[in-house]
Formats: sequence, C-alpha cells, structure tokens
Amino acid sequence: MNKLYVVGIGPGNYDNMTIRADKALKESDVIVGYGVYVDLVKDRYAEKEFFTSPMTKEVLRCEKAVEFAVEGKTVSLICSGDSGIYGMAALIYEVAESMDALAKIEIEVVPGITSASSGSAILGAPLTHDFAVVSLSDRLTPWEKIEERLRKAAEGDFAIAIYNPASKGRPDHLKKACEILGGIIPSERPCGIARNIGREGESARVLTFGELASADVDMFCTVFIGNSSTRIIDGKLVTPRGYRDV
Amino acid sequence: MNKLYVVGIGPGNYDNMTIRADKALKESDVIVGYGVYVDLVKDRYAEKEFFTSPMTKEVLRCEKAVEFAVEGKTVSLICSGDSGIYGMAALIYEVAESMDALAKIEIEVVPGITSASSGSAILGAPLTHDFAVVSLSDRLTPWEKIEERLRKAAEGDFAIAIYNPASKGRPDHLKKACEILGGIIPSERPCGIARNIGREGESARVLTFGELASADVDMFCTVFIGNSSTRIIDGKLVTPRGYRDV
Repeated sequence: MNKLYVVGIGPGNYDNMTIRADKALKESDVIVGYGVYVDLVKDRYAEKEFFTSPMTKEVLRCEKAVEFAVEGKTVSLICSGDSGIYGMAALIYEVAESMDALAKIEIEVVPGITSASSGSAILGAPLTHDFAVVSLSDRLTPWEKIEERLRKAAEGDFAIAIYNPASKGRPDHLKKACEILGGIIPSERPCGIARNIGREGESARVLTFGELASADVDMFCTVFIGNSSTRIIDGKLVTPRGYRDV
Repeated sequence: MNKLYVVGIGPGNYDNMTIRADKALKESDVIVGYGVYVDLVKDRYAEKEFFTSPMTKEVLRCEKAVEFAVEGKTVSLICSGDSGIYGMAALIYEVAESMDALAKIEIEVVPGITSASSGSAILGAPLTHDFAVVSLSDRLTPWEKIEERLRKAAEGDFAIAIYNPASKGRPDHLKKACEILGGIIPSERPCGIARNIGREGESARVLTFGELASADVDMFCTVFIGNSSTRIIDGKLVTPRGYRDV
C-alpha cells in the first residue's frame, strides 16, 4: 500500500528533526508542504519532487498529497513543529475520507518537536508541570472561544504556551489576550518569548507578565506564561515540578 | 565550559530521537538517568560511562550530573519524552543553583518528542487544536489541584492529554478523574489510550469517554480525551482544526 507520511519536521533546523522524519523524507518520492517549510528542507532532499501551496490552501495541499499517494508515489506531507499539534494530520484523515481514499493508502503520522518543547528549551524549562497550549489565531476559531480557553487555563494555574501570538492581520492579539488574563495572573509573573526557534536569528527573552502586553511579537514567536511556581534562575524561566520539596 | 545536556530521548526507540539528541549522547562522557531510560539507550552508546538512580531519587541524579560536569566531563542527563515537559530540565537549574555551579557549567536543554505528540501520532490526530496536558500523579502535586485543572481544561473545551493515568500505588486515579470530568464531558466523546509508545508491544485503543473510567491503564499509558469537535475516522481519533469549514 502506498505510504503517505505526515511528518513533523520540528522547528526548522535539521538537528531538531527526528531520525524517523529524516528517513520518511529520504524514502519519499514527493514532498508536499507550505512553501516556507519546504524551503527549510529542500536542499537536503534536492532530488525529490516538490509540491507547495500557500497559506489558506491547506485543503488543496492535502488533496494533492492524497492524490500522489493514490497514484502510487510515496509521499511526505511536511508540517513545521509536530504533525499533529496545529498540524496537517487531522486534515489528511478528513480529506482522504472525503476522497474515498482511506482504503487505498496507508497514512503514517510521524511526530515532531512542537514549539512548546523547542521554545521551552531555549527559555529554560517553563512547562515542567501541567500546561495548556492556546493559539491566538482566529482564522478558524471564534475569538470568544480563544478568550474562554485563556481564562480557564489561567484559572487552572496551568503554565501556558501561546502559539500564533500575532500576525500582520492581527497585530494586537497578544495585547488582547493579556487584558483577559490580567484579572487572573499577577503582573510580576515570569513569562518568556521564543523567536525563530532553531533558525537564523533565534532569540529568547524573559520578561514579566506586566511587560508582555506591550512586547514586540510576530508570527515567528511562541509566548510562555509561567504558573504560580515559575521563577527565574540565572536568566532562565524555570517551573519547578516539586522534587526538591519532598 | 563543560557541557551538561538535558536530553529528551522521546518515547524510547532510536528513530523517534532527534538528530541533535543522538549527537549530544555521542559527544558525552557520561550518561545519567533513571535506570529504565538508560537501558533504552545503553547498547547504542555502550562505550560511555553511566550513572543511574531510581524513581524518587531525582535530586540525587541531578546532583551527580552537575558534579560530573563540574569535574570536567561532558554529561547527558536523559529524560523520556521531552526534557522539559515533566522532565529534569527545571530540576537541573534548581540543583545547579543550589550547588553554586551555574557559572561553572553550560546547561543546554535538548528537546524531545513528548507523549502528547507521539501518542497522538499512533491514535490519529487528537490534539490538532488547543489542548491541555495534566498528570494524574499526586506524588508532587496535591490531588485537589489536579482535580481543579481537569475541571478547567474540560470547561475550556480543551482536548486533554493525561500523563501518568495510573500506577501500582494509585490504580484508580483515571477513574477518579473521569468522575470529575463526567459532569462536563458527554459519555459518547471520543477518547484514546496509547500504550508503550515506540516500544515493544505498542498499542492504540479508541474508546468513548463513558468507557474510559473502567479501561485498563497503567504507568505506560497516555490517555487522550477529545474536544467537542473530535470524531472517529477509519478507527482514528481526529480533532479537526476547521480548515474544511472555510
């Protein structure tokens, strides 16, 4: 049966890919993905066939990946970070079902390092304990639902990783999120911003929750909000699990 | 400066390690970890020195790792899954601080694939959207806090990944968690259990929330509870992001 790998390539550099993701790409005839992500891997797998589609053309991208697999090609559909978390794995199942292709291809989801992990690593260890991940993109989710999730995450004292904190079309989403969280999270709570993780110009900034609302963020950032135990050690954001208390 | 890598080795098989984790282990003089995890990598890095400590001896393990680095050795402290998420990265910063060793060593956190990603991959794609991760281990966290987090996660309609759903000492924690969630999550909600991810005897089971309370789980399981959009496609647990609705 023809393989369709849905591959999480991690933050973008080769070293943060898994050995399995590398093998899947090597084994593939075609690599399908968003142009920016395909550019990240193109040089290393230059002999492959490539298909890219722009943002908002995710369904088309998945349809092409399924088509290639049905035609008999081994395909890798690549996602930045993990292939599941805000990735294409779910859409591949939906699209393959609607194309009546589920019996004709074998879908294998290859996990990758998501920004919650890779961003944490450059900031220290902000997510050692229970945490929530929330995307501020309201392209596919009503803003009210995002607000409600932020509120519940903060009320539950979860450390929070915020994906898509801003983009050109929604420059003030993080500010809006901070306004919602402001009634629950104290302004001195340690927070962090990881930018361009694993890529050229990687940076990590530790700041307080009070400073976060006016911080400069863009679509290349992942934002971390500590829980009530998070503290700063040697410039790093550290959420203790509690081992030293027992 | 002497390097201390805190390395997430992923679920346990070599293929799900990152290229960077493999490099860190190869470069190290000593590999430190919980015995079970060290056994997973021992054969491949057989020429290294090893130090293991049992469960509940996490502080000792970190102290030894810091000591080795201060002595001039390159050290990898390994964690299963990610090195941050329920891992040792935070404790290394705490221990190095208390040993006054922060200026003498260079700590580098190497992220790994956490069960939220690797378990999702074998179940389908349950965490495509906002999600929360909660551990049911009350060794270091009061049970009341765990209950509160479960409640908030369900109220926020987060998909939920549950780590440490049971162990010998707390065989009924998942059942207790289901009782708390039962008032919020309908019994037909799709759920999943991933067991022995990436290891001998790997298994994935899709079931309803109503079936979850009496499901057989142990410390090798990660449990997934879908959000209000999660459905089953071809036996897989799939949480749509919403791409097909635009």
